[in-house]
Amino acid sequence: MNAPRDLPPARLRPAQRAARLKGSVIREILKLTAGADVISLAGGLPSPLSFPVPALRAAFDAVLRDDGAAALQYSSTEGDLRLREWIAARETARGVPTTADEVLIVAGSQQALDLLGKAFAEPGAPLLVESPSYLGALQAFSVYQPTFRTLPTDDAGLDPQAIDAAVAADARLLYSMPNFQNPTGRTLSAERRALLAQAARDHDLWLVEDDPYGELWYEQAPPPSLRAWARERTIRLSSFSKVLAPGLRLGYVIAPVECIELLERLKQATDLCTATLTQRAAAQVLASGLMDTHLPRIRALYAAQAQVMLDALAEHMPPGVQWTRPAGGMFVWLQLPAALDAMALLRPAIARGVAFVPGEPFYALEPMRNTLRLSFVTVPAEKIRQGVATLAGLIAAAAA
Amino acid sequence: MNAPRDLPPARLRPAQRAARLKGSVIREILKLTAGADVISLAGGLPSPLSFPVPALRAAFDAVLRDDGAAALQYSSTEGDLRLREWIAARETARGVPTTADEVLIVAGSQQALDLLGKAFAEPGAPLLVESPSYLGALQAFSVYQPTFRTLPTDDAGLDPQAIDAAVAADARLLYSMPNFQNPTGRTLSAERRALLAQAARDHDLWLVEDDPYGELWYEQAPPPSLRAWARERTIRLSSFSKVLAPGLRLGYVIAPVECIELLERLKQATDLCTATLTQRAAAQVLASGLMDTHLPRIRALYAAQAQVMLDALAEHMPPGVQWTRPAGGMFVWLQLPAALDAMALLRPAIARGVAFVPGEPFYALEPMRNTLRLSFVTVPAEKIRQGVATLAGLIAAAAA
Repeated sequence: MNAPRDLPPARLRPAQRAARLKGSVIREILKLTAGADVISLAGGLPSPLSFPVPALRAAFDAVLRDDGAAALQYSSTEGDLRLREWIAARETARGVPTTADEVLIVAGSQQALDLLGKAFAEPGAPLLVESPSYLGALQAFSVYQPTFRTLPTDDAGLDPQAIDAAVAADARLLYSMPNFQNPTGRTLSAERRALLAQAARDHDLWLVEDDPYGELWYEQAPPPSLRAWARERTIRLSSFSKVLAPGLRLGYVIAPVECIELLERLKQATDLCTATLTQRAAAQVLASGLMDTHLPRIRALYAAQAQVMLDALAEHMPPGVQWTRPAGGMFVWLQLPAALDAMALLRPAIARGVAFVPGEPFYALEPMRNTLRLSFVTVPAEKIRQGVATLAGLIAAAAA
Repeated sequence: MNAPRDLPPARLRPAQRAARLKGSVIREILKLTAGADVISLAGGLPSPLSFPVPALRAAFDAVLRDDGAAALQYSSTEGDLRLREWIAARETARGVPTTADEVLIVAGSQQALDLLGKAFAEPGAPLLVESPSYLGALQAFSVYQPTFRTLPTDDAGLDPQAIDAAVAADARLLYSMPNFQNPTGRTLSAERRALLAQAARDHDLWLVEDDPYGELWYEQAPPPSLRAWARERTIRLSSFSKVLAPGLRLGYVIAPVECIELLERLKQATDLCTATLTQRAAAQVLASGLMDTHLPRIRALYAAQAQVMLDALAEHMPPGVQWTRPAGGMFVWLQLPAALDAMALLRPAIARGVAFVPGEPFYALEPMRNTLRLSFVTVPAEKIRQGVATLAGLIAAAAA
């Protein structure tokens, strides 16, 4: 080899869709907190205390012991039949009849968002989202260059009355997270679910129901899924990331068969299949009935942590700060006095030892800069109290 | 819930990019062979005999035992540092200095193809591929709606002399598989690698070097990688699917840091990260030095199987049929007399108990219909002989 090795890298010429996707300023700032002595209320990570490590260890071992070669081979794009049947049975048991061929296994529900963008987002065409909405969905869809149209939300979730002919014109999809929404922690009321289903029918929209947190309720289950109200036009996404473990990268889509087949063809071109071994291990754990004992543990853990944060907010936050009271999930959403910019508070907060996520990136359009998201699930109670107190002091000083 | 449940599914309106992606006729036909008493020479699957089941079982168990909670959490998008360092060290040991930040872990190299399409393919803009080329790459790229331009190939691989200003005009990427290509089994000669690197510099092209099979050589390693010749403009893809197991879904990209960062941003929006547990288990197995003993075993296995097929072809095929002599990998490529259409032979072949893949879908443009691909790695020797004999009889009859 006498090849020249010292040339500088050639010029990258990304496609337009890729050039749009900027690195996240917030992620860069939050990287500063890694390893540092900072109380992070910024994380979107589930608590490691919620991972059923011994059960998963036993399941991986049993699968590799009993049928190792098959578990290590490629498998079908739609996913492990036993796992799809478990998911279908669970939906059916909740009153929404479902068959395994209406289920597609994906590499975490983030992959489902990518596949939906790929399948349905036409460059320039409108896509309806809540305001604010899940950041990861906005990023996944953005790559496919839709024009976002936003729907207003309040404490009962998105307002279906806002969906009129003008808003719905040329739109195919409406994306929402009805249960314990990321970032706000809000839940769409039962009444609004029915109205939303009707609006979707009136305007021929498909509903994307993203539901990673629905099982994480504290006192009572949320209302029936959007899919229960409009099975013929709902694409329901969920994940094992918050009920088993995110490091497995396992999620799923439930939708009418034609839609599943379309997404399956796209998944085939995207990654051939989801990891066979991981799907089999998950199916094994779920068949054992683990969820019956495991889910109540996570719910109790998160409910207690949520209460600690709500109490701390009530104790420390100055007047003029409002926050949501989640009935499940992992997040509280704060609205600061209108003059404050949460992004401008982030560096000073980190300097004082506490991190959060400013609300701005959760807005597809017209961000409310005086908002921020707090997570209460990965930090122990004493640190939650301390972090909230520190943040409250900073906000009080900035508002003064 | 008094929701209407019996409405037919709403009309799907896929985006243009998704509507283009048709289901595969061949896949539908080959599904007929599942469970049936058919000798499948069609598979692209590695041999399950090549999977190091005990080593992987021990590694998954050790990782879950020693650091289960961390192994089950989300992890960084770029991938496990230990795994990236192992990959970088291996590249460096082969004479191409590489650091861990030039490596991105992906969910199988099919995901790398999807990310490359996303990153670089502009609708309507030209993308250079070999003729024939890897079907999975054509599918992954197609979704992003490039215009394919094809480069001619012969027994020494693609012909770099064909890359002139007209062919390269407006193109950003040239995709090729230099070692034991899927579908042809051919290897790009050392001379042509140097010429290809020069052509890429002359025309400011990035080279995508897809190398899933490079370790599977029979008697001697293939020439140094394209990246060895043009590190500043080569995006090298490889995978653990053929050297550990495909059911893990682990692959990687090696490229200049700026390119890795672009792909990492896109991967973040696509699936957040590759499975943490799987990456750690793979890193554990690789650190143990398994490859030193494992790779020679796979090479010997595949070399023996290849020889069985080549001998059977020589014994049974009628005059006028030509085939490649792979020096590694999993495939032999047949060229039948010009009047024959391999697609038309598929159903009769299955009816007689042997399956193969017609060559047509491996061509981005202007398919040679008298070609087909045979795999020799998953079927035992006696079945290879029997399958080739049956196929030869059918071809002889059709040619008569």
